[in-house]
Order: sequence, then C-alpha cells, then structure tokens
Amino acid sequence: MFEVAELGHTVEKSVYKEKSAQLRTALLAVQDRLKDSPFSVIIIISGVDGGGKGEVITRLNEWLDAHYMRTIALGESTDEERERPKFWRFWRTLPAKGTIGLYVGSWYSDPIAQRVYQKIDTNALQTELIQINQLEQLLSDDKTLIIKCWLHLKKEAQIKRLKALAKDPATKWRVTDKDRQHLGLYDEFIGVAEQVLTETSKAHAPWLIVEGSDIRYSSLTVGQHVLERIQQHIQQHSNAATDVTGSTTPSQVQQYNLLDALDLSLKIDKSDYKKQLEKYQGKLNELTRLTLAAKRSSILVFEGWDAAGKGGAIRRLTEAMDARHYQVIPIAAPTDEERAHHYLWRFWRHIPRAGQVTIYDRSWYGRVLVERVEGLAKPNQWQRAYSEIVNFEEAMLAHGIVIMKFWLHIDRDEQMRRFKSREQISFKQFKITEEDYRNREKWDDYQKAVNEMIARTSTSKSPWILVEANDKNHARIKIIKAYCDRLEKMLDEIH
Amino acid sequence: MFEVAELGHTVEKSVYKEKSAQLRTALLAVQDRLKDSPFSVIIIISGVDGGGKGEVITRLNEWLDAHYMRTIALGESTDEERERPKFWRFWRTLPAKGTIGLYVGSWYSDPIAQRVYQKIDTNALQTELIQINQLEQLLSDDKTLIIKCWLHLKKEAQIKRLKALAKDPATKWRVTDKDRQHLGLYDEFIGVAEQVLTETSKAHAPWLIVEGSDIRYSSLTVGQHVLERIQQHIQQHSNAATDVTGSTTPSQVQQYNLLDALDLSLKIDKSDYKKQLEKYQGKLNELTRLTLAAKRSSILVFEGWDAAGKGGAIRRLTEAMDARHYQVIPIAAPTDEERAHHYLWRFWRHIPRAGQVTIYDRSWYGRVLVERVEGLAKPNQWQRAYSEIVNFEEAMLAHGIVIMKFWLHIDRDEQMRRFKSREQISFKQFKITEEDYRNREKWDDYQKAVNEMIARTSTSKSPWILVEANDKNHARIKIIKAYCDRLEKMLDEIH
Repeated sequence: MFEVAELGHTVEKSVYKEKSAQLRTALLAVQDRLKDSPFSVIIIISGVDGGGKGEVITRLNEWLDAHYMRTIALGESTDEERERPKFWRFWRTLPAKGTIGLYVGSWYSDPIAQRVYQKIDTNALQTELIQINQLEQLLSDDKTLIIKCWLHLKKEAQIKRLKALAKDPATKWRVTDKDRQHLGLYDEFIGVAEQVLTETSKAHAPWLIVEGSDIRYSSLTVGQHVLERIQQHIQQHSNAATDVTGSTTPSQVQQYNLLDALDLSLKIDKSDYKKQLEKYQGKLNELTRLTLAAKRSSILVFEGWDAAGKGGAIRRLTEAMDARHYQVIPIAAPTDEERAHHYLWRFWRHIPRAGQVTIYDRSWYGRVLVERVEGLAKPNQWQRAYSEIVNFEEAMLAHGIVIMKFWLHIDRDEQMRRFKSREQISFKQFKITEEDYRNREKWDDYQKAVNEMIARTSTSKSPWILVEANDKNHARIKIIKAYCDRLEKMLDEIH
Repeated sequence: MFEVAELGHTVEKSVYKEKSAQLRTALLAVQDRLKDSPFSVIIIISGVDGGGKGEVITRLNEWLDAHYMRTIALGESTDEERERPKFWRFWRTLPAKGTIGLYVGSWYSDPIAQRVYQKIDTNALQTELIQINQLEQLLSDDKTLIIKCWLHLKKEAQIKRLKALAKDPATKWRVTDKDRQHLGLYDEFIGVAEQVLTETSKAHAPWLIVEGSDIRYSSLTVGQHVLERIQQHIQQHSNAATDVTGSTTPSQVQQYNLLDALDLSLKIDKSDYKKQLEKYQGKLNELTRLTLAAKRSSILVFEGWDAAGKGGAIRRLTEAMDARHYQVIPIAAPTDEERAHHYLWRFWRHIPRAGQVTIYDRSWYGRVLVERVEGLAKPNQWQRAYSEIVNFEEAMLAHGIVIMKFWLHIDRDEQMRRFKSREQISFKQFKITEEDYRNREKWDDYQKAVNEMIARTSTSKSPWILVEANDKNHARIKIIKAYCDRLEKMLDEIH
C-alpha cells in the first residue's frame, strides 16, 4: 500500500518555484468558481509524524484565498466538546457551501492513536471506521467534496527527519515526546494506518498516499491533487459544459512510479536457472501435497504487460503440480452468461475447493486496468472496484485461502522484441494481433493504472509481488520461489 | 420498529380472490418487461418462525412466471460450500439479468441464528452485517434490485400459530423442534432482528415489515410490494418515458395504520388533570436536578399534526424546569447559514451540554415528513434519511443522552375545530394560515409518511411514543409522565 510513497521523490528548488507559482494561480482561479458552487470542500491532511503535515498545511494556506477557507486545528477536546457526542466538534466546524475546511487533525486522529496505543482493539477500531464511513457517506451524499491526503515516510526516513528537526534549535520544539514515543511504534502505526486507509478509501472519498520526505514534492503533489479534485467536482455539479480542467491546470509534478523503480537487468543464467527450477519445482510439488492434506487452497493471480511471460511462468508452476488439484482460468472477454452477472461473479465461480489451487491468467484486476484505460468501465465503476476487490480478497483470506498476486514487468523495448519474435514463430503468431500494438500506445495510461492499483490493493495480508521479467528465467524463479516461501510460512503457522 | 406489524391486519377471502387475480396479471406484465431489463431482482423473504414465510413463497411462485424466476432454498451448507468462503453459496446462485431470484433463507439466516443462540456476540454480528451491507451495496451498484420482506408476529400470535400448526395432522410436520426452541427465545430473536433490520435498511435495499398473522394479507402485501418495486426500478433504468406504474397497478390492500389504532377518546378531566400535573411537574423538577448532577443530558423531540398541541405540552414541561438548564428550539424553514450546510447540521448545533435539556419543536424528522410530502427533498434524499437519522440518534445514545420522541396525534375533525377556534382568538390568529388548510389536504400522504417513519426509526433504545392528543390534558400528562419514567429508569441504572 505504501510502496508508491517510498521511492524517494524530490523536487528541485527552481522547479518548485515555477510549479508553485503556476499552481497558486490555478488554485485561486478554481476557488473563485467554488464560491458559487453548491457544495463545500473538506481537506484532511494526515499521516506519519515527521511526514510534514504542518508544512503542507502552511503551503496550502499560502496558496489559497483565506476568505473562503478555514484551517481547523483540533487538538485535545475542550470541556464543551467532551460533554457532547464525539462527532459534535467536527459538525460544528464543517465548512459552509462554497468554502473549504482544511482539517489539521480530523476524525481519523483519535481512532488511530487509540489503536496504536492499544487503548482499543481491532473490533472497536472497526466500529469507529464504520462511523467515519457513515459520516463521509452522508456528507458526500450532500455533495460535499472530501479530499484526504496521507503523508508517508519510510521508517529510516522518519528517524532521520525527526533527528534533524531535534538537532536544529529552530525546529527542536516541534519534536514532542509523543513523536519520539511514536517512533518506537512505527510498525504498529503503519499496520493500523493500513487498516484505516483500506477501510475508508471509498470511491467518493479516496485516500491519496504521498511521500513526505521532501516538502517541496509533497506540498506540490497535495496542492495539485486538491486543484484537480475541486475542478472535477465543479464540473460534475455544474450543468454548464464549460471545461475548467483544460487550460488552467499547471503541468504535473514529475511522479516516479513503482515500475520504473524495478531493476530490469536482473537475470539468471541458463545452467543456474535449470538447477534452481528443479529445486523449487520439487519443493512446490511437496508443498502442494501438504497443503492439500491441510485443506488450504490457493489463488494465484497473474497480471502484467502483453508478452511479459505470464503463460510461461504459469507452466513452470503447473508442471510441478498434480493436474487433479489445480485449474488455470484464462480471463478473456466475458461470456454472455458472465456478462449477465456482476463482474466479480465469473471469479467467484472458480474459487477452489479445500486444498486446491486456482490460477487466474489475468483477473478481476482487469476492472481497474484494461477496463479503466479502454473506457469499458465508467469512472465510478472502476473507482469503487478497489474496495470491492479488497473486500472480495478479504473474504478469501478470512477463509484461510492463500492469495498471491504477481505483476510481471518488462520495458517497452523488450515488449517490441518479443512481439517481433512471436511473429517469426509460426505457432506463436496467433498470440500477436493489431490490438497488442494498439495497447502499446497506451503504455503511460496503463502505468498510471498499475501504480494506483498497487497503492489501493496491496495490503500486508495480500501484497502485490512485482516481478522483473525482462529475463524470463529470473521471473520464473522469483515467482515459484515466492509461492514456495508463502506456502511454507502458512504451513508453519498452522502446525 | 415492529409496531406497524402488530395491528391485526386481515383480508377477507372474497377480497383476496379478487385482489390476487389483479395482482397476478400485473406481476406477469411487469415480469415480461423485466426480461429485457439490464438488471436482476433478488427477493428475500425472512422473519419470525410461524410468520408464514413458506406460504408467501408458495404464493409468489404461483403468481410469477417460473421461466424467469428461480426459488433458491438454502438450508444447511454442503461440503462443496463449506470448503469455500461463506458468500460463495450466494454468489453461485445469484440471478442473471432479466430474472428473479427468490431466496428462502439468505445471507441473513446464519448471522441471526448464531446471535440468537449466543454463538457470536454483538460485535461479531456487527461485522457480519457490514459484510452483508457491502454485498448488497455492490449488487445495487450493479443495478440489482434487492427486495427484502420481514414477516413479523406478536409473541402471542406466534405461540397461537405454532400450536395450531402442531395440532393439525396435515401441518404438524412443519413445526420443527427448532421452531419450539425459537419460541422460548422470542424476545432475544426480536432484539437481534431489530439490530439486523436497522443496520441493513438502506435506501437501496430497505426492509418492508409485514404482519404475518394472516396469510392472505401478508402474501398480497408482499406481492404488491414486489410489483411496485420492480415497476419503479424498470422506470428508473429505462430511458423511455413510458409510465409502467399507471394503469397496471391493482388497487392496494387495505392497510391499517398505527395512527388509526390509537384511542382518541382517552381523556382526563380538569380536576384530575390539575392534581396529576402538579404531581409530575414536582417530580420532573426533582429529576432534572438529579440528571444535571449526574451530567446526563436529554433531547426531546415533538412532532405531530398542526394544532396538535405541541407548544402547550412543551410549556407544561418547561414550567417544571430551571430556565438555565433547557432550551426550546423551534424548527421552521432553515436560515441561509443552515441551508449552506447538511440538513442535520442545524440539529447538531443545539446538542445540549452535560445535564442540559434540548427540546425540539419539530425536528430532523421534517426530512421524512414535510420535506417528503411536499417534495422538498428528492426520493433518494428522504429515503436515505432514515438511516442517517438512526445513526445520528445512535451517536447521542452512545454518549448517554436520553432521547424522547413524541408524535402528537389528533383526528381531522379535531384539527378543524382547533383551526376555527384559533381564528376566534386574537392572539392565536397568527398561528393559523392558508398553508395549514393546504396541509390538511395531504392528510393521507402525511399518515403514510408517519407510519413509515415509525417503522424505520422506532427502535427499542429510542422508540416513538404515540400520544393520543384529542384531549390536551391526557396528552400533557402522558408526555410528562413518560419523561419522568424514563429519567427515573436512567437514574436507577447509573446508581
């Protein structure tokens, strides 16, 4: 979930200067239109300590027109507040239509802190999150735009940042004892944050996860996001066909993405590959027999670029398994019968029986990949699909099913080489069509969709495994090894 | 919540014959249109044992065209099913677009039974209900129409019915040991049912509560409801402006309502009234001082017909209280500032501090009464208001606030008498306007709205108190006494 915010994004000072000036102009313009719009805007800035919440809020205050915006800083509750139901303090501060409320500390603060400090258990947190969802749903139903940004830091980055702040006499006061205490609880905090963000990322109020180590990067990213969301919302709620997104949007901050961060030069040479493959296939064979006896089934999901080698990787797995115990489900366009049902129905159909394995060659993630990029699903359909998918996988996990999700990544050049070589080989020609070439042109759109998919659906219980696949040997070994490791761990846990 | 289904509804045999023939024709006609519609229909028939679920399902099967409908009877789960996540059995049976799936036993059966038999606790039930809501939300988002009917019986009626079935050799087999066991758990069952129905009644999938003591009545009511819901849904999802609701709808089954069931002849004579008023005002004065010391606040809601005597009743309460400790909030048209916020915002504003009392003269229920009837709120707005209101009141209850909700009922003749007499008295003339006369004309619409409001928002923790108000003395004493009783009970509990 936080992978996208651990890539070391930074913005040069000179770039910042230019971009922030553009952004400011655009924000003021959109705020001017917002004034007469039939909805209010709530901005929530949350995240890890040292993630730069305060700085981002300061920048937003610089950029936005204070006449139509209010920063609502809620710390300890007052007497007045404690004597009323807990949401009263939020209700009394909700922004009026046409204005922005910028929350420093929000309905998320208390539940997260209480859970991290073990004052409430998971169930109680769940109950709090339901109430938060109800509140946000109610506000969204009333057209309120809810923008939620989460500032993330890697553990090492957090330590470094807090140390730096503590060292500098000018910023020392900003590091509280509470911060230091939090530091020791980094892992707990991230675990709780994952639950909170997963449960409360809804199509109408999604979380944006932003890397917080460079304040120029994070404030530009948040500002840009605020701008775009307000623009979209105005457009959605105005009948006028005027396009506000067009000319006024400044160029985006450069976003690194997870896929670019992969090292595609990784490779395994032939003789080593053969040895390792033999070793892991033997291991897998044994493990699948044990899992069958333990009645624990598996679901393996393969996604990746065209020609990334999904089929080959799947075959290396199935070679090691008993044909009675697995099935491979290739996902192409849905049948008539499938089309007459919910899009998840075709996947529910093939859920394995106890101990069995189902391998999906492409999957429900098509909803947020090809269907999104090709416009086959409407924005509200693919946006709500993230939580539908998370819920779907949680139902599997709750039943004790092992889920492995692989994204096979190759670069554009490698893909072209493979397309060309397929065209040379008679029995592979059928695999390459005009459509494949067309898809290539949407590479950037797909990359964006993949990054968002990972940010929204990679959870600690069901993470995405990104596979460097320019070298097929490397990819196949990484996959079979990962599956063996997971099965071993699972078997350990139940024994 | 179940008040509406305890009024003794019955339908004569001859009436049933005529109505069921009409209904059948209409159902077949609508089913013919459904065939080509882009959605499926799920009908869930649930309720208390002996409530006639089986009979209602049999009738629906008689009336509907079996080609496009399937009855899905799910009892104990099979091996196949147990080896997969629990919702798998429902997913595999979901109806295709254009067809109806009639569920006997549904995703509600297990959670309810497990909670009644104490196999799971309230939190676990809550988690189950969240998953159910997620499933129904996901299906609704995919346009599926979900129709949920709950067949209710009073405790005595259930005992009578099961005894009758057990006595008759022809029906004896239908009374299982489980039914007898349930009988001893009637109160537990109703408590659980209330939680389940409250949490899962959403605008897109509301529960209809139907009295189950007379099978002719219940099957006609359910059939009628199915017809109307499908008609509405077709209309909503067809761009064609053709009106399918018009001519084909058979006349409704006669519905008794809660208000008609009240005994408006109840009265208290003047001397008795004075004595009682003095007694309860003294008591209330003492009790409000104790609650202030105990820091427990109260919210009193007054709703009722125009001229039903809300103001007078409120004054009889406030006379007994210290002016520093209560405020009366008359709710008229919202101010500009209020209009710029969510409709609940104006009510959150006045939530009392610890130990204080807020009296709302009209309230948030305006959303589902005047705003509904006068078309000031759109159907989806007032429909989702029921759960918004229940959540709102639950936030108060969770904080330990006492909520009392009074509906003051008078009949139309009494209202007219009061209008006329107000016109005679100079200082009351301002209270009577043309609008009051106009509202009278919508008496039936308001009655329907009041009945639905009570069915959807009267819970055991926050029930509606229906006040027979043709006699003002009776009404005032009933109200002050009810409030005293509740405060006494609350004080007992905390000591």
